[in-house]
Amino acid sequence: MEQRAKLTVAELERLLSDEFPQMFNPQGGYCIEEVWFGGCRIRKRFSERSLRPGGTISGTTMMALADSAPYVAILVSIGWVPLAVTINLTINFLRKPPAADLFAEARLVKLGKRLAVADVGIRSEGEDELVAHATSTYSIPPQR
Amino acid sequence: MEQRAKLTVAELERLLSDEFPQMFNPQGGYCIEEVWFGGCRIRKRFSERSLRPGGTISGTTMMALADSAPYVAILVSIGWVPLAVTINLTINFLRKPPAADLFAEARLVKLGKRLAVADVGIRSEGEDELVAHATSTYSIPPQR
Amino acid sequence: MEQRAKLTVAELERLLSDEFPQMFNPQGGYCIEEVWFGGCRIRKRFSERSLRPGGTISGTTMMALADSAPYVAILVSIGWVPLAVTINLTINFLRKPPAADLFAEARLVKLGKRLAVADVGIRSEGEDELVAHATSTYSIPPQR
Amino acid sequence: MEQRAKLTVAELERLLSDEFPQMFNPQGGYCIEEVWFGGCRIRKRFSERSLRPGGTISGTTMMALADSAPYVAILVSIGWVPLAVTINLTINFLRKPPAADLFAEARLVKLGKRLAVADVGIRSEGEDELVAHATSTYSIPPQR
Repeated sequence: MEQRAKLTVAELERLLSDEFPQMFNPQGGYCIEEVWFGGCRIRKRFSERSLRPGGTISGTTMMALADSAPYVAILVSIGWVPLAVTINLTINFLRKPPAADLFAEARLVKLGKRLAVADVGIRSEGEDELVAHATSTYSIPPQR
Repeated sequence: MEQRAKLTVAELERLLSDEFPQMFNPQGGYCIEEVWFGGCRIRKRFSERSLRPGGTISGTTMMALADSAPYVAILVSIGWVPLAVTINLTINFLRKPPAADLFAEARLVKLGKRLAVADVGIRSEGEDELVAHATSTYSIPPQR
Repeated sequence: MEQRAKLTVAELERLLSDEFPQMFNPQGGYCIEEVWFGGCRIRKRFSERSLRPGGTISGTTMMALADSAPYVAILVSIGWVPLAVTINLTINFLRKPPAADLFAEARLVKLGKRLAVADVGIRSEGEDELVAHATSTYSIPPQR
Repeated sequence: MEQRAKLTVAELERLLSDEFPQMFNPQGGYCIEEVWFGGCRIRKRFSERSLRPGGTISGTTMMALADSAPYVAILVSIGWVPLAVTINLTINFLRKPPAADLFAEARLVKLGKRLAVADVGIRSEGEDELVAHATSTYSIPPQR
Protein backbone atom coordinates (compact mmCIF):
# COMPACT_ATOMS: atom_id res chain seq x y z
CA MET A 1 0.00 0.00 0.00
CA GLU A 2 1.64 3.18 -1.21
CA GLN A 3 1.64 5.79 1.52
CA ARG A 4 1.25 8.87 -0.63
CA ALA A 5 -1.78 11.06 -1.41
CA LYS A 6 -3.06 10.29 -4.92
CA LEU A 7 -4.78 13.66 -5.43
CA THR A 8 -4.01 17.20 -4.35
CA VAL A 9 -6.50 19.60 -2.78
CA ALA A 10 -6.72 21.50 -6.07
CA GLU A 11 -7.43 18.32 -8.08
CA LEU A 12 -10.04 17.19 -5.57
CA GLU A 13 -11.83 20.52 -5.53
CA ARG A 14 -12.03 20.57 -9.31
CA LEU A 15 -13.27 16.96 -9.57
CA LEU A 16 -15.74 17.31 -6.70
CA SER A 17 -17.22 20.58 -7.89
CA ASP A 18 -17.94 18.91 -11.25
CA GLU A 19 -19.44 15.82 -9.65
CA PHE A 20 -21.19 17.27 -6.59
CA PRO A 21 -21.85 20.88 -7.51
CA GLN A 22 -24.36 21.28 -4.66
CA MET A 23 -21.84 20.77 -1.87
CA PHE A 24 -18.45 21.61 -3.25
CA ASN A 25 -19.13 25.05 -4.61
CA PRO A 26 -18.61 28.52 -3.21
CA GLN A 27 -22.13 28.61 -1.72
CA GLY A 28 -22.10 25.01 -0.43
CA GLY A 29 -19.50 26.14 2.04
CA TYR A 30 -17.23 23.09 1.95
CA CYS A 31 -13.53 23.75 1.82
CA ILE A 32 -10.86 21.03 1.79
CA GLU A 33 -8.18 22.35 4.12
CA GLU A 34 -5.65 19.55 4.05
CA VAL A 35 -5.30 16.02 2.71
CA TRP A 36 -2.90 13.18 3.36
CA PHE A 37 -2.78 9.45 2.68
CA GLY A 38 -5.54 8.03 4.87
CA GLY A 39 -7.18 11.27 5.94
CA CYS A 40 -8.23 14.86 5.44
CA ARG A 41 -9.53 17.95 7.17
CA ILE A 42 -12.56 19.78 5.81
CA ARG A 43 -14.05 23.11 6.82
CA LYS A 44 -17.77 23.81 6.61
CA ARG A 45 -18.32 27.53 6.61
CA PHE A 46 -21.04 28.79 8.88
CA SER A 47 -24.33 29.56 7.19
CA GLU A 48 -27.51 30.98 8.68
CA ARG A 49 -29.36 28.20 6.91
CA SER A 50 -27.84 25.55 9.19
CA LEU A 51 -29.05 27.21 12.39
CA ARG A 52 -31.58 25.51 14.62
CA PRO A 53 -33.64 27.07 17.42
CA GLY A 54 -31.30 28.01 20.24
CA GLY A 55 -28.57 29.24 17.89
CA THR A 56 -26.97 25.84 17.38
CA ILE A 57 -26.02 24.12 14.13
CA SER A 58 -28.37 21.41 12.87
CA GLY A 59 -27.59 17.73 13.18
CA THR A 60 -28.16 17.38 9.45
CA THR A 61 -25.28 19.76 8.76
CA MET A 62 -23.01 17.65 10.96
CA MET A 63 -24.19 14.38 9.41
CA ALA A 64 -23.53 15.68 5.89
CA LEU A 65 -20.05 16.73 6.95
CA ALA A 66 -19.40 13.42 8.73
CA ASP A 67 -20.32 11.60 5.55
CA SER A 68 -18.31 13.80 3.15
CA ALA A 69 -15.00 13.89 4.98
CA PRO A 70 -14.32 10.11 4.77
CA TYR A 71 -15.32 10.18 1.12
CA VAL A 72 -12.60 12.76 0.46
CA ALA A 73 -10.13 10.73 2.56
CA ILE A 74 -10.82 7.67 0.40
CA LEU A 75 -10.40 9.57 -2.87
CA VAL A 76 -7.13 11.02 -1.61
CA SER A 77 -5.87 7.56 -0.72
CA ILE A 78 -6.93 5.45 -3.68
CA GLY A 79 -7.49 8.02 -6.43
CA TRP A 80 -10.63 9.17 -8.21
CA VAL A 81 -13.34 6.51 -7.67
CA PRO A 82 -16.49 8.58 -7.39
CA LEU A 83 -18.68 5.50 -7.05
CA ALA A 84 -17.53 4.66 -3.55
CA VAL A 85 -20.75 4.58 -1.51
CA THR A 86 -21.56 4.84 2.17
CA ILE A 87 -22.77 1.55 3.62
CA ASN A 88 -23.44 2.88 7.07
CA LEU A 89 -22.70 5.74 9.40
CA THR A 90 -22.95 6.10 13.17
CA ILE A 91 -22.81 9.56 14.65
CA ASN A 92 -22.68 10.65 18.28
CA PHE A 93 -23.73 14.23 18.98
CA LEU A 94 -21.62 15.39 21.91
CA ARG A 95 -22.09 19.14 22.35
CA LYS A 96 -24.21 21.82 20.71
CA PRO A 97 -22.03 23.65 18.20
CA PRO A 98 -22.27 27.45 18.33
CA ALA A 99 -22.79 29.60 15.23
CA ALA A 100 -19.30 29.18 13.77
CA ASP A 101 -17.38 27.22 11.14
CA LEU A 102 -17.06 23.47 11.69
CA PHE A 103 -14.01 21.32 11.00
CA ALA A 104 -14.16 17.60 10.29
CA GLU A 105 -11.05 15.49 10.46
CA ALA A 106 -11.38 12.03 8.91
CA ARG A 107 -8.96 9.19 9.42
CA LEU A 108 -9.27 5.83 7.66
CA VAL A 109 -8.89 3.07 10.22
CA LYS A 110 -9.21 0.48 7.49
CA LEU A 111 -8.54 0.78 3.79
CA GLY A 112 -9.17 -2.55 2.14
CA LYS A 113 -9.85 -3.46 -1.47
CA ARG A 114 -13.60 -3.59 -1.02
CA LEU A 115 -14.23 -1.74 2.22
CA ALA A 116 -12.95 1.35 3.99
CA VAL A 117 -13.79 2.37 7.55
CA ALA A 118 -13.36 5.91 8.84
CA ASP A 119 -13.28 7.69 12.17
CA VAL A 120 -14.37 11.34 12.04
CA GLY A 121 -14.12 14.05 14.66
CA ILE A 122 -16.02 17.32 14.26
CA ARG A 123 -15.00 20.47 16.11
CA SER A 124 -16.11 24.11 16.13
CA GLU A 125 -13.52 26.59 14.99
CA GLY A 126 -11.16 27.49 17.79
CA GLU A 127 -12.42 24.74 20.10
CA ASP A 128 -10.59 21.68 21.27
CA GLU A 129 -13.43 19.39 22.31
CA LEU A 130 -15.41 17.42 19.75
CA VAL A 131 -18.99 18.48 19.00
CA ALA A 132 -19.65 15.20 17.19
CA HIS A 133 -17.89 11.93 16.48
CA ALA A 134 -18.73 9.50 13.70
CA THR A 135 -17.63 6.21 12.22
CA SER A 136 -18.65 5.05 8.78
CA THR A 137 -18.09 2.25 6.30
CA TYR A 138 -17.73 2.66 2.54
CA SER A 139 -17.98 0.13 -0.24
CA ILE A 140 -15.28 0.56 -2.88
CA PRO A 141 -16.28 -0.63 -6.33
CA PRO A 142 -13.94 -3.05 -8.14
CA GLN A 143 -11.51 -1.04 -10.24
CA ARG A 144 -10.25 -1.73 -13.71
CA MET B 1 -47.88 4.90 30.16
CA GLU B 2 -50.93 6.26 28.45
CA GLN B 3 -51.31 4.67 25.03
CA ARG B 4 -52.82 7.63 23.20
CA ALA B 5 -51.28 10.18 20.83
CA LYS B 6 -50.82 13.50 22.65
CA LEU B 7 -50.86 15.65 19.52
CA THR B 8 -52.67 15.47 16.21
CA VAL B 9 -51.08 15.84 12.79
CA ALA B 10 -52.55 19.35 12.51
CA GLU B 11 -51.17 20.41 15.91
CA LEU B 12 -47.75 18.98 15.11
CA GLU B 13 -47.55 20.68 11.74
CA ARG B 14 -48.43 24.02 13.27
CA LEU B 15 -45.93 23.68 16.14
CA LEU B 16 -43.14 22.32 13.93
CA SER B 17 -43.52 24.93 11.23
CA ASP B 18 -43.12 27.61 13.91
CA GLU B 19 -40.10 25.93 15.48
CA PHE B 20 -38.36 24.44 12.44
CA PRO B 21 -39.51 26.59 9.56
CA GLN B 22 -36.72 25.27 7.31
CA MET B 23 -37.95 21.70 7.23
CA PHE B 24 -41.61 21.75 8.03
CA ASN B 25 -42.79 24.24 5.46
CA PRO B 26 -44.31 23.87 2.01
CA GLN B 27 -40.86 24.03 0.32
CA GLY B 28 -39.07 21.82 2.89
CA GLY B 29 -41.13 18.98 1.55
CA TYR B 30 -41.88 17.21 4.83
CA CYS B 31 -45.41 15.99 5.33
CA ILE B 32 -46.63 14.12 8.41
CA GLU B 33 -48.86 11.40 7.00
CA GLU B 34 -49.93 9.58 10.13
CA VAL B 35 -49.15 9.56 13.84
CA TRP B 36 -49.90 7.15 16.67
CA PHE B 37 -48.64 6.57 20.19
CA GLY B 38 -45.06 5.40 19.73
CA GLY B 39 -44.67 6.10 16.03
CA CYS B 40 -45.38 8.05 12.87
CA ARG B 41 -45.04 8.01 9.11
CA ILE B 42 -43.55 10.98 7.29
CA ARG B 43 -43.33 11.72 3.59
CA LYS B 44 -40.44 13.63 2.07
CA ARG B 45 -41.48 14.98 -1.30
CA PHE B 46 -39.00 14.50 -4.08
CA SER B 47 -36.93 17.56 -4.90
CA GLU B 48 -34.34 18.02 -7.64
CA ARG B 49 -32.06 19.46 -4.99
CA SER B 50 -31.67 16.07 -3.27
CA LEU B 51 -30.45 14.30 -6.41
CA ARG B 52 -26.93 12.92 -6.59
CA PRO B 53 -25.01 11.82 -9.68
CA GLY B 54 -26.67 8.70 -11.06
CA GLY B 55 -30.19 9.99 -10.39
CA THR B 56 -30.33 8.75 -6.81
CA ILE B 57 -31.35 10.65 -3.67
CA SER B 58 -28.53 11.87 -1.43
CA GLY B 59 -27.60 10.19 1.81
CA THR B 60 -27.99 13.53 3.57
CA THR B 61 -31.66 13.64 2.60
CA MET B 62 -32.17 10.18 4.08
CA MET B 63 -30.21 11.03 7.24
CA ALA B 64 -32.28 14.18 7.80
CA LEU B 65 -35.45 12.15 7.40
CA ALA B 66 -34.18 9.35 9.66
CA ASP B 67 -33.50 11.93 12.36
CA SER B 68 -36.80 13.84 12.02
CA ALA B 69 -39.22 10.93 12.06
CA PRO B 70 -38.32 9.71 15.59
CA TYR B 71 -38.47 13.28 16.82
CA VAL B 72 -42.07 13.50 15.63
CA ALA B 73 -42.81 10.07 17.14
CA ILE B 74 -41.53 11.30 20.52
CA LEU B 75 -43.58 14.51 20.40
CA VAL B 76 -46.69 12.51 19.51
CA SER B 77 -46.12 10.20 22.45
CA ILE B 78 -45.13 12.55 25.25
CA GLY B 79 -46.45 15.92 24.06
CA TRP B 80 -44.66 19.08 22.97
CA VAL B 81 -41.08 18.94 24.30
CA PRO B 82 -39.12 20.61 21.55
CA LEU B 83 -35.84 20.29 23.46
CA ALA B 84 -35.55 16.54 22.98
CA VAL B 85 -32.16 16.10 21.31
CA THR B 86 -30.56 13.33 19.28
CA ILE B 87 -27.76 11.60 21.16
CA ASN B 88 -26.78 9.30 18.35
CA LEU B 89 -27.96 7.84 15.08
CA THR B 90 -26.87 4.80 13.09
CA ILE B 91 -28.02 4.51 9.51
CA ASN B 92 -27.59 1.65 7.05
CA PHE B 93 -27.95 2.56 3.39
CA LEU B 94 -29.46 -0.48 1.70
CA ARG B 95 -30.45 0.45 -1.85
CA LYS B 96 -30.17 3.54 -4.03
CA PRO B 97 -33.50 5.35 -3.94
CA PRO B 98 -34.81 6.48 -7.32
CA ALA B 99 -36.09 10.00 -7.99
CA ALA B 100 -39.36 9.70 -6.04
CA ASP B 101 -40.94 10.59 -2.71
CA LEU B 102 -39.54 8.87 0.37
CA PHE B 103 -41.49 7.56 3.34
CA ALA B 104 -40.03 7.12 6.81
CA GLU B 105 -41.82 5.06 9.40
CA ALA B 106 -40.53 5.50 12.95
CA ARG B 107 -41.33 3.21 15.85
CA LEU B 108 -40.17 3.86 19.41
CA VAL B 109 -38.67 0.65 20.78
CA LYS B 110 -38.06 2.38 24.10
CA LEU B 111 -39.79 5.37 25.61
CA GLY B 112 -38.31 6.06 29.02
CA LYS B 113 -38.33 9.17 31.17
CA ARG B 114 -34.89 10.29 30.07
CA LEU B 115 -34.22 8.30 26.91
CA ALA B 116 -36.10 7.18 23.83
CA VAL B 117 -34.83 4.76 21.20
CA ALA B 118 -36.32 4.54 17.72
CA ASP B 119 -36.20 2.18 14.77
CA VAL B 120 -36.81 3.83 11.39
CA GLY B 121 -37.41 2.27 8.01
CA ILE B 122 -37.22 4.39 4.85
CA ARG B 123 -38.89 3.32 1.62
CA SER B 124 -39.41 4.84 -1.82
CA GLU B 125 -43.00 5.50 -2.78
CA GLY B 126 -44.65 2.38 -4.12
CA GLU B 127 -41.80 0.09 -3.08
CA ASP B 128 -41.82 -2.58 -0.46
CA GLU B 129 -38.12 -3.00 0.31
CA LEU B 130 -36.28 -0.57 2.57
CA VAL B 131 -33.82 1.87 1.00
CA ALA B 132 -32.38 2.72 4.42
CA HIS B 133 -32.77 1.63 8.03
CA ALA B 134 -31.79 3.64 11.08
CA THR B 135 -31.80 3.47 14.84
CA SER B 136 -31.37 6.50 17.04
CA THR B 137 -31.40 7.57 20.67
CA TYR B 138 -32.89 10.77 22.04
CA SER B 139 -32.39 12.52 25.34
CA ILE B 140 -35.64 13.81 26.84
CA PRO B 141 -35.22 16.84 29.09
CA PRO B 142 -36.74 16.72 32.58
CA GLN B 143 -40.23 18.17 32.45
CA ARG B 144 -41.94 20.38 34.91
CA MET C 1 -33.46 -14.49 -5.61
CA GLU C 2 -35.01 -17.79 -4.64
CA GLN C 3 -37.33 -17.30 -1.69
CA ARG C 4 -36.78 -20.64 0.01
CA ALA C 5 -34.65 -21.63 3.01
CA LYS C 6 -31.50 -23.41 1.82
CA LEU C 7 -30.89 -25.31 5.06
CA THR C 8 -33.12 -26.87 7.68
CA VAL C 9 -32.76 -26.40 11.43
CA ALA C 10 -31.35 -29.93 11.69
CA GLU C 11 -28.75 -29.30 8.97
CA LEU C 12 -27.75 -25.98 10.52
CA GLU C 13 -27.37 -27.43 14.00
CA ARG C 14 -25.13 -30.20 12.70
CA LEU C 15 -22.96 -27.86 10.62
CA LEU C 16 -22.72 -25.20 13.32
CA SER C 17 -21.89 -27.63 16.11
CA ASP C 18 -18.99 -28.89 14.00
CA GLU C 19 -17.77 -25.40 13.14
CA PHE C 20 -18.53 -23.49 16.34
CA PRO C 21 -18.58 -26.17 19.03
CA GLN C 22 -18.30 -23.56 21.79
CA MET C 23 -21.65 -21.92 21.12
CA PHE C 24 -23.78 -24.45 19.33
CA ASN C 25 -23.50 -27.32 21.73
CA PRO C 26 -25.71 -28.53 24.56
CA GLN C 27 -23.81 -26.43 27.13
CA GLY C 28 -23.49 -23.31 24.94
CA GLY C 29 -27.21 -22.94 25.29
CA TYR C 30 -28.04 -21.84 21.74
CA CYS C 31 -31.05 -23.41 20.14
CA ILE C 32 -32.31 -22.59 16.62
CA GLU C 33 -36.08 -22.44 17.03
CA GLU C 34 -37.18 -21.54 13.54
CA VAL C 35 -35.66 -20.54 10.21
CA TRP C 36 -37.05 -19.04 7.01
CA PHE C 37 -35.67 -17.34 3.93
CA GLY C 38 -34.29 -14.04 5.24
CA GLY C 39 -34.59 -14.71 8.95
CA CYS C 40 -34.53 -16.94 12.00
CA ARG C 41 -35.41 -17.12 15.68
CA ILE C 42 -32.83 -18.35 18.18
CA ARG C 43 -33.20 -19.17 21.86
CA LYS C 44 -30.39 -18.63 24.34
CA ARG C 45 -31.07 -20.74 27.40
CA PHE C 46 -30.57 -19.00 30.71
CA SER C 47 -27.29 -19.75 32.42
CA GLU C 48 -26.04 -18.58 35.82
CA ARG C 49 -22.80 -17.66 34.09
CA SER C 50 -24.46 -14.82 32.16
CA LEU C 51 -25.77 -13.10 35.29
CA ARG C 52 -24.51 -9.67 36.28
CA PRO C 53 -24.90 -7.92 39.64
CA GLY C 54 -28.57 -7.08 40.11
CA GLY C 55 -29.77 -10.37 38.65
CA THR C 56 -29.73 -9.18 35.05
CA ILE C 57 -28.17 -10.85 31.99
CA SER C 58 -24.86 -9.44 30.79
CA GLY C 59 -24.53 -7.21 27.76
CA THR C 60 -21.94 -9.62 26.39
CA THR C 61 -24.52 -12.39 26.30
CA MET C 62 -26.88 -10.17 24.33
CA MET C 63 -24.14 -8.99 21.96
CA ALA C 64 -23.10 -12.59 21.21
CA LEU C 65 -26.71 -13.46 20.48
CA ALA C 66 -27.22 -10.32 18.35
CA ASP C 67 -24.21 -11.34 16.28
CA SER C 68 -25.09 -15.02 15.90
CA ALA C 69 -28.72 -14.71 14.83
CA PRO C 70 -28.02 -12.79 11.58
CA TYR C 71 -25.25 -15.25 10.79
CA VAL C 72 -27.76 -18.08 10.95
CA ALA C 73 -30.24 -16.03 8.89
CA ILE C 74 -27.61 -15.58 6.18
CA LEU C 75 -26.70 -19.28 6.11
CA VAL C 76 -30.38 -20.19 5.85
CA SER C 77 -30.82 -17.82 2.95
CA ILE C 78 -27.74 -18.44 0.83
CA GLY C 79 -26.55 -21.86 1.99
CA TRP C 80 -23.48 -22.95 3.90
CA VAL C 81 -20.85 -20.15 3.62
CA PRO C 82 -19.17 -20.26 6.99
CA LEU C 83 -16.72 -17.49 6.04
CA ALA C 84 -19.32 -14.74 6.13
CA VAL C 85 -17.90 -12.23 8.62
CA THR C 86 -19.38 -9.42 10.66
CA ILE C 87 -18.26 -6.00 9.45
CA ASN C 88 -20.02 -4.03 12.13
CA LEU C 89 -22.73 -4.24 14.72
CA THR C 90 -24.72 -1.58 16.57
CA ILE C 91 -26.68 -2.62 19.63
CA ASN C 92 -29.10 -0.62 21.76
CA PHE C 93 -29.72 -1.95 25.26
CA LEU C 94 -33.32 -1.09 26.08
CA ARG C 95 -34.31 -2.89 29.29
CA LYS C 96 -32.53 -5.09 31.81
CA PRO C 97 -33.40 -8.70 31.02
CA PRO C 98 -34.41 -10.81 34.00
CA ALA C 99 -32.92 -14.25 34.70
CA ALA C 100 -34.72 -16.11 31.90
CA ASP C 101 -34.20 -17.45 28.40
CA LEU C 102 -33.64 -14.88 25.66
CA PHE C 103 -35.00 -15.00 22.11
CA ALA C 104 -33.39 -13.24 19.16
CA GLU C 105 -35.30 -12.75 15.95
CA ALA C 106 -33.15 -11.73 12.99
CA ARG C 107 -34.48 -10.35 9.72
CA LEU C 108 -32.28 -9.56 6.73
CA VAL C 109 -33.18 -6.10 5.46
CA LYS C 110 -30.64 -6.48 2.67
CA LEU C 111 -29.23 -9.61 1.10
CA GLY C 112 -26.82 -8.65 -1.64
CA LYS C 113 -24.04 -10.57 -3.32
CA ARG C 114 -21.33 -9.04 -1.18
CA LEU C 115 -23.17 -7.57 1.78
CA ALA C 116 -26.05 -8.49 4.05
CA VAL C 117 -27.67 -6.21 6.63
CA ALA C 118 -29.76 -7.52 9.51
CA ASP C 119 -32.18 -6.14 12.05
CA VAL C 120 -32.35 -8.12 15.30
CA GLY C 121 -34.79 -7.87 18.18
CA ILE C 122 -34.05 -9.59 21.50
CA ARG C 123 -36.79 -10.42 23.98
CA SER C 124 -37.01 -12.25 27.29
CA GLU C 125 -39.14 -15.36 27.28
CA GLY C 126 -42.79 -14.52 27.73
CA GLU C 127 -42.27 -10.78 27.27
CA ASP C 128 -43.44 -8.60 24.43
CA GLU C 129 -41.12 -5.62 24.68
CA LEU C 130 -37.59 -5.74 23.34
CA VAL C 131 -34.68 -5.90 25.81
CA ALA C 132 -32.20 -5.06 23.05
CA HIS C 133 -32.23 -4.14 19.38
CA ALA C 134 -29.31 -4.49 16.99
CA THR C 135 -28.39 -3.92 13.37
CA SER C 136 -25.36 -5.48 11.76
CA THR C 137 -23.60 -5.81 8.41
CA TYR C 138 -21.93 -8.95 7.09
CA SER C 139 -19.45 -9.43 4.28
CA ILE C 140 -20.23 -12.44 2.11
CA PRO C 141 -17.20 -13.99 0.45
CA PRO C 142 -17.31 -14.56 -3.30
CA GLN C 143 -18.60 -18.07 -3.98
CA ARG C 144 -17.41 -20.57 -6.51
CA MET D 1 -14.23 19.11 35.84
CA GLU D 2 -11.31 17.91 37.90
CA GLN D 3 -8.65 16.42 35.66
CA ARG D 4 -7.35 13.75 37.96
CA ALA D 5 -8.01 10.00 38.12
CA LYS D 6 -10.36 9.21 41.03
CA LEU D 7 -9.24 5.60 41.44
CA THR D 8 -5.93 3.78 41.05
CA VAL D 9 -5.43 0.55 39.13
CA ALA D 10 -5.14 -1.33 42.42
CA GLU D 11 -8.40 0.15 43.77
CA LEU D 12 -10.21 -0.60 40.51
CA GLU D 13 -9.02 -4.19 40.37
CA ARG D 14 -10.15 -4.81 43.93
CA LEU D 15 -13.59 -3.20 43.40
CA LEU D 16 -14.16 -4.84 40.01
CA SER D 17 -13.13 -8.31 41.13
CA ASP D 18 -15.72 -8.05 43.92
CA GLU D 19 -18.44 -6.77 41.62
CA PHE D 20 -17.70 -8.65 38.38
CA PRO D 21 -15.84 -11.74 39.52
CA GLN D 22 -16.41 -13.44 36.15
CA MET D 23 -14.34 -11.00 34.13
CA PHE D 24 -11.93 -9.36 36.49
CA ASN D 25 -10.34 -12.40 38.01
CA PRO D 26 -7.16 -14.30 37.24
CA GLN D 27 -8.96 -16.67 34.82
CA GLY D 28 -11.11 -13.96 33.18
CA GLY D 29 -7.93 -12.62 31.69
CA TYR D 30 -8.63 -8.90 32.05
CA CYS D 31 -5.79 -6.76 33.28
CA ILE D 32 -5.99 -2.98 33.74
CA GLU D 33 -2.66 -1.74 32.40
CA GLU D 34 -3.01 2.00 32.85
CA VAL D 35 -5.65 4.54 33.83
CA TRP D 36 -5.92 8.31 33.52
CA PHE D 37 -8.65 10.91 33.76
CA GLY D 38 -10.85 10.22 30.73
CA GLY D 39 -9.33 6.94 29.64
CA CYS D 40 -7.62 3.62 30.26
CA ARG D 41 -5.79 0.75 28.60
CA ILE D 42 -6.86 -2.84 29.28
CA ARG D 43 -5.21 -6.09 28.31
CA LYS D 44 -7.21 -9.22 27.54
CA ARG D 45 -4.90 -12.21 27.83
CA PHE D 46 -5.19 -14.73 25.05
CA SER D 47 -7.26 -17.79 25.85
CA GLU D 48 -7.89 -20.87 23.72
CA ARG D 49 -11.56 -20.43 24.55
CA SER D 50 -11.81 -17.23 22.48
CA LEU D 51 -10.53 -18.86 19.29
CA ARG D 52 -12.76 -19.20 16.27
CA PRO D 53 -12.24 -21.39 13.21
CA GLY D 54 -9.25 -20.05 11.29
CA GLY D 55 -7.26 -19.29 14.43
CA THR D 56 -8.75 -15.84 14.96
CA ILE D 57 -10.25 -14.36 18.13
CA SER D 58 -14.04 -14.26 18.34
CA GLY D 59 -16.05 -11.12 17.81
CA THR D 60 -17.71 -11.72 21.17
CA THR D 61 -14.34 -11.43 22.91
CA MET D 62 -13.74 -8.09 21.21
CA MET D 63 -17.24 -6.83 21.96
CA ALA D 64 -16.88 -7.70 25.65
CA LEU D 65 -13.57 -5.84 25.74
CA ALA D 66 -14.99 -2.85 23.82
CA ASP D 67 -17.76 -2.61 26.40
CA SER D 68 -15.58 -3.02 29.49
CA ALA D 69 -12.86 -0.52 28.69
CA PRO D 70 -15.12 2.56 28.64
CA TYR D 71 -16.74 1.37 31.84
CA VAL D 72 -13.33 1.40 33.52
CA ALA D 73 -12.58 4.81 31.97
CA ILE D 74 -15.79 6.21 33.47
CA LEU D 75 -15.09 4.79 36.93
CA VAL D 76 -11.57 6.24 36.82
CA SER D 77 -12.95 9.65 35.92
CA ILE D 78 -15.96 10.02 38.20
CA GLY D 79 -15.27 7.49 40.96
CA TRP D 80 -16.99 4.26 41.92
CA VAL D 81 -20.50 4.29 40.34
CA PRO D 82 -21.01 0.65 39.44
CA LEU D 83 -24.51 1.30 38.14
CA ALA D 84 -23.38 3.11 35.01
CA VAL D 85 -24.96 1.14 32.17
CA THR D 86 -24.28 0.83 28.47
CA ILE D 87 -27.00 2.44 26.37
CA ASN D 88 -25.54 1.45 23.04
CA LEU D 89 -22.39 0.25 21.36
CA THR D 90 -21.24 0.28 17.74
CA ILE D 91 -18.29 -1.86 16.79
CA ASN D 92 -16.42 -2.09 13.49
CA PHE D 93 -14.39 -5.26 12.96
CA LEU D 94 -11.38 -4.23 10.88
CA ARG D 95 -8.92 -7.13 10.77
CA LYS D 96 -8.86 -10.69 12.06
CA PRO D 97 -6.86 -10.73 15.28
CA PRO D 98 -4.29 -13.54 15.54
CA ALA D 99 -3.98 -15.78 18.61
CA ALA D 100 -2.41 -13.19 20.91
CA ASP D 101 -3.26 -10.79 23.72
CA LEU D 102 -5.55 -7.88 22.85
CA PHE D 103 -5.28 -4.31 24.11
CA ALA D 104 -8.19 -1.89 24.30
CA GLU D 105 -7.61 1.80 24.75
CA ALA D 106 -10.70 3.78 25.72
CA ARG D 107 -10.99 7.55 25.58
CA LEU D 108 -14.05 9.46 26.79
CA VAL D 109 -15.04 11.97 24.10
CA LYS D 110 -17.84 13.22 26.32
CA LEU D 111 -18.22 13.04 30.08
CA GLY D 112 -21.45 14.71 31.08
CA LYS D 113 -23.53 14.44 34.23
CA ARG D 114 -25.94 11.94 32.72
CA LEU D 115 -24.14 10.59 29.68
CA ALA D 116 -20.64 9.55 28.72
CA VAL D 117 -19.47 8.66 25.20
CA ALA D 118 -16.33 6.66 24.52
CA ASP D 119 -14.09 5.87 21.59
CA VAL D 120 -12.26 2.53 21.85
CA GLY D 121 -9.46 1.14 19.73
CA ILE D 122 -8.50 -2.54 19.98
CA ARG D 123 -5.08 -3.81 18.87
CA SER D 124 -3.25 -7.12 18.96
CA GLU D 125 -0.12 -7.18 21.06
CA GLY D 126 2.84 -5.81 19.15
CA GLU D 127 0.72 -4.50 16.27
CA ASP D 128 0.07 -0.92 15.31
CA GLU D 129 -3.11 -1.19 13.28
CA LEU D 130 -6.51 -1.52 14.92
CA VAL D 131 -8.29 -4.88 14.77
CA ALA D 132 -11.55 -3.27 15.92
CA HIS D 133 -12.90 0.18 16.70
CA ALA D 134 -15.95 0.94 18.82
CA THR D 135 -17.96 3.84 20.14
CA SER D 136 -20.40 3.53 22.99
CA THR D 137 -22.70 5.58 25.19
CA TYR D 138 -23.24 5.09 28.92
CA SER D 139 -25.95 6.35 31.21
CA ILE D 140 -24.62 7.64 34.52
CA PRO D 141 -27.07 7.38 37.41
CA PRO D 142 -27.75 10.49 39.50
CA GLN D 143 -25.31 10.61 42.40
CA ARG D 144 -25.80 11.68 45.94
